This record gives sequence, C-alpha cells and structure tokens, in this order.
Amino acid sequence: MTGGTITVPTSRQMELIDITAEITKALRASGISEGFCLIYNPHTTAGLTINEGADPDVQRDLIGALQEMVPRQYPYQHAEGNSPAHVMATLAGSSVTVLVEGGGLRLGTWQKIFFCEFDGPRTRKVHWRVVPG
Amino acid sequence: MTGGTITVPTSRQMELIDITAEITKALRASGISEGFCLIYNPHTTAGLTINEGADPDVQRDLIGALQEMVPRQYPYQHAEGNSPAHVMATLAGSSVTVLVEGGGLRLGTWQKIFFCEFDGPRTRKVHWRVVPG
Amino acid sequence: MTGGTITVPTSRQMELIDITAEITKALRASGISEGFCLIYNPHTTAGLTINEGADPDVQRDLIGALQEMVPRQYPYQHAEGNSPAHVMATLAGSSVTVLVEGGGLRLGTWQKIFFCEFDGPRTRKVHWRVVPG
Repeated sequence: MTGGTITVPTSRQMELIDITAEITKALRASGISEGFCLIYNPHTTAGLTINEGADPDVQRDLIGALQEMVPRQYPYQHAEGNSPAHVMATLAGSSVTVLVEGGGLRLGTWQKIFFCEFDGPRTRKVHWRVVPG
Repeated sequence: MTGGTITVPTSRQMELIDITAEITKALRASGISEGFCLIYNPHTTAGLTINEGADPDVQRDLIGALQEMVPRQYPYQHAEGNSPAHVMATLAGSSVTVLVEGGGLRLGTWQKIFFCEFDGPRTRKVHWRVVPG
Repeated sequence: MTGGTITVPTSRQMELIDITAEITKALRASGISEGFCLIYNPHTTAGLTINEGADPDVQRDLIGALQEMVPRQYPYQHAEGNSPAHVMATLAGSSVTVLVEGGGLRLGTWQKIFFCEFDGPRTRKVHWRVVPG
C-alpha cells in the first residue's frame, strides 16, 4: 500500500479547497494504476466532500446552506464555541474513497475533491492511501 | 480488481431508487466471494445511501426531511438553480462501501442501497468495484 | 481479509458511544499492521461517525444539533414513528474507513470513532474488516 500526506493551508473560517490536482499528482508519482484511493481528514472541525468544481458559486452555496442548517442559537455546551464546526464535520464525513483507473482518479465529469474547512484559518493535513487491485 | 457500471434511469425530481438487486447480480457474476465493494456515484446532484428498504414510506420521509432541512430561500448564487441538490449530494455522500461475504453483499436485515436522485429526472450511472480479500 | 463483529449495547434514545478502544483491541489481535479498516453499521436507525472524543460535550452538542436540524413536525408517513432516526442514519452514514498503520488505527489527535444510536435503547452490532496492504 502506498500513500502520503498533503498540507492544506486554509485562509478563512469556512471554505472549500479543491485538492484534486494535488492528490492526482501524488497518486501518479506512486505508479499505482488500478485500485481504490482513500483520502482521509484527521481533523474534527473539518471534512472532505466530492462536489461540483466548475462553478465556485456551488462551493459558496454549500457553505451558506450548512451555516443556515446547523443551528447557531442552540445552547451548545462545548466551551471552545466551535460546536457547529464539529456538527458539519459529521455531516460532510471524515473521508472519501475514489476509484483509481489508468493511474488517475476516476471522478465524474464535474466532480472535484474538496477539503472542507469549518473552523479556520488553520494549517491542515490530509492523508491519502491507495490499495492496488 | 473487478467492477462495472450500472445505468439508473430516474423519473422524478427527487427519489430514492433501490439498486441492491442490480449490484448483487453484477457482484455474483464477478465470482468474487470475499472483500469490500465500493459503490460510487459520479454525479454532483445525486448521492448514495444505505437505509431501510422494507417500507417505501421511509424513502419518502427521507426526501421530505431533506427538502425541509436544506434551505430553499437562501440567496444561492449558482445560476443553474439546483444548489439544494448539490447540498444534498454532500449530505448523502458520493459512495458507500459494503462488505462482501459468500459472494453477496453483507447488508443488515433491513438495509438496502439507494441511489439518491436530487435533481432529476435524468439517466444516471453508478460504478462499483470489488477488492478481494 | 480479517474482521469480526462487536456488540454495542445502548442505554438511551440517542447517544454517541466511543468504540475506538474495542475496535483497536480487535484489530491488534488480528495481527495486521498496514491497510484499511472498514467499520460498518448494519442498522437503519443508527450510524457511525468520527469526531472529537476529548470533551463529552461535543457528543451532546452533536445530538442536540441533529435533533434541531431534522424536522420533528414534518408529516412523516412511516408508521413506526422513527423517521427522524432514519434521516440521521443517512446524514451520519453507514460506515467509516480508517487507515491502519503499525497495527493500530491512524486517527487524528482528537478523533474517536463513535457509534451513533438514534433510536435506542437497543443492542447493536458493528462489523469491522481489514484489507491488508
């Protein structure tokens, strides 16, 4: 099994960052052509998602909708004040798995892989690992 | 590694379609008896989920609840007007992974695999791949 | 491929139960040192998530936020009256996948794996399986 870690610096409290090119580059360097790629976020106030990458408005709308959906006024107990970010982490999920074919990620036409920052700005890490097949 | 693609025609704007039988049939044809099966949705206004398949009301309730939760009135920027469908795609997730045992999917008693159409009707694709073990 | 099933007794209608230690123990007994670990929930009114385990308030806040977000007043059709639990099962997801390194789970510093009970109390099962690599 082959993999690595990429660093994702974020610059806003909430933002989606397209990490597809960086994962693709690392994957190609690994030389594995067929299999599964697990992309894993080790943080509890961030997540990973696959969604449309062509129009940046989709990313903004996604953040706006999450801010509307997850309650702000709820009597949260967690003293750090970032409970909505923890909730969003669970909604997005901690990992995505993508098929590898011909040495690249087999994403849909409009799909990109996004790191979801919910409590930034911070310097984040993302692990990836490929199981060949 | 063995896999394929199934076609899922949808007939409504939002609906859940049980694809368990079709995936099971394809899996059995592959001859792999033990491993993981990744089922992957390549679309950005659709998703995959595992939930109860016995009572179709659960599927209707799930769609109804998502329509209530994801804001409709939010000032979305994405010009296509289907931002709620993109939000739902992130909430449901782009893939599900299921154990393979004895040549079949090891689902729970009440579990079925559903393709989630959030912006139909369209003709959709779903990829599946098995890693033996 | 190596795996097993753990039993998770729950004691409340909704609660998050940290199953990290039990999965880690079972994993170590398997002797597999590198790979992927799939942790799978076979129930349709429960889920799995990875989130902060240091402060139990995060778990309470997560449950509280989900109860706020998923509508209670919606005219649900499913006669069992637990449709919100089915919705939460889809939001959390039916499985998590974690990297295995050095015979243990490679979680982030603050991450723990939680079984999410949304319609308890019940006696639940969780399957886990490792693919070496």
